[in-house]
Amino acid sequence: MTIQDLQQALADFAAEREWEQFHTPKNLAMALAGESGELVEIFQWLTPEQSAQVMQDTERAGQVREEMADVLAYLLRLADVLDVDLEQALAQKIETNRRKYPVHLARGRADKYTQLGE
Amino acid sequence: MTIQDLQQALADFAAEREWEQFHTPKNLAMALAGESGELVEIFQWLTPEQSAQVMQDTERAGQVREEMADVLAYLLRLADVLDVDLEQALAQKIETNRRKYPVHLARGRADKYTQLGE
Amino acid sequence: MTIQDLQQALADFAAEREWEQFHTPKNLAMALAGESGELVEIFQWLTPEQSAQVMQDTERAGQVREEMADVLAYLLRLADVLDVDLEQALAQKIETNRRKYPVHLARGRADKYTQLGE
Amino acid sequence: MTIQDLQQALADFAAEREWEQFHTPKNLAMALAGESGELVEIFQWLTPEQSAQVMQDTERAGQVREEMADVLAYLLRLADVLDVDLEQALAQKIETNRRKYPVHLARGRADKYTQLGE
Repeated sequence: MTIQDLQQALADFAAEREWEQFHTPKNLAMALAGESGELVEIFQWLTPEQSAQVMQDTERAGQVREEMADVLAYLLRLADVLDVDLEQALAQKIETNRRKYPVHLARGRADKYTQLGE
Repeated sequence: MTIQDLQQALADFAAEREWEQFHTPKNLAMALAGESGELVEIFQWLTPEQSAQVMQDTERAGQVREEMADVLAYLLRLADVLDVDLEQALAQKIETNRRKYPVHLARGRADKYTQLGE
Repeated sequence: MTIQDLQQALADFAAEREWEQFHTPKNLAMALAGESGELVEIFQWLTPEQSAQVMQDTERAGQVREEMADVLAYLLRLADVLDVDLEQALAQKIETNRRKYPVHLARGRADKYTQLGE
Repeated sequence: MTIQDLQQALADFAAEREWEQFHTPKNLAMALAGESGELVEIFQWLTPEQSAQVMQDTERAGQVREEMADVLAYLLRLADVLDVDLEQALAQKIETNRRKYPVHLARGRADKYTQLGE
């Protein structure tokens, strides 16, 4: 399935339930933030090492998948109602970051680009 | 580009910079929450009506695209390191929600499924 | 009760349960983000007008109080473990914002300070 | 300063700038989520150990204080416009959690109360 197919499925789902009235960009951005919050909660008390093993617990794995699907759903809906081409936006972002974080300066460092090259 | 292609591009980007060490699921979930927060900030003082016009302001439109790309990037990275099939997770979620929110009960209502059918 | 009293109660609660090991600043910041996400979810489908009436629904009012208490609890714990004086930090912030948002420029405008005076 | 004093200072600040129109509960909840997102970003690439040392870097310490003040400011404003007594809400929450997380079951465990006593 392409991103467009997924967006169409979500748009149909909303239209069948007359939910477009709730799907303003403002509300969808809130819903996305809410789901990201639920995702982060799964990891909040885990050590980094435990977080890498999270999918080995069946129940938690299911929660992770659900919350990630929710984040994706709202992100796709938001892109749809705002007519944002997500693939293009991401490709541009990668290009921008390629310039901001040149390999020879950014290697092995988690610093923001404004702090590289110091 | 498929979701897998985008994930590969992001994985290569991280590997070239030796950033895999930072990309634990815990950290990626945090980064996703952070970017969602930046996205929500764009909309926080807008009325619902203004939020629907947000792409007509060139500067804001650029910010929206950037923040959405950031959210997508971290979501794809997280799915990659956790080996989650996002398309499948979303398809399952839509199926689940089809049962939780039957059209005849959910039409025109923003209530949680636990409150439908009352 | 002062902020210090509340912090002491929360510190005692954590100590009794040997939870200090989980209360790293990183984890507490995540928990704070998670609770903020739950708070935002309560409001996500409400119109601005409905959001102003949210406390008239007893069940929702209870949820709002709970989520706000959770946000406050993690904020106070984070301030405690980082030894941040929240009152002083807020007083300084208000002072800074007084300069960034002079009344004659900011009146009735929701713009960021960088866009005032244009 | 009491919580009420801080709320009064923030209410005056908003009133002087005619910002009450923007301070709907919905918008304030979004602003709170946005600031929580900025706070979590400071910690996202840090190890738990590094996060515990975050205040030793003067620049980062200043950022932490600022973001925490922002979170507190929006939380206090939201409580004010919703007429929520934050202290009371937190005291009740602590009482509830005392029952949900009895010491003999919760000691040294980060599990949710629904998973204790298994």
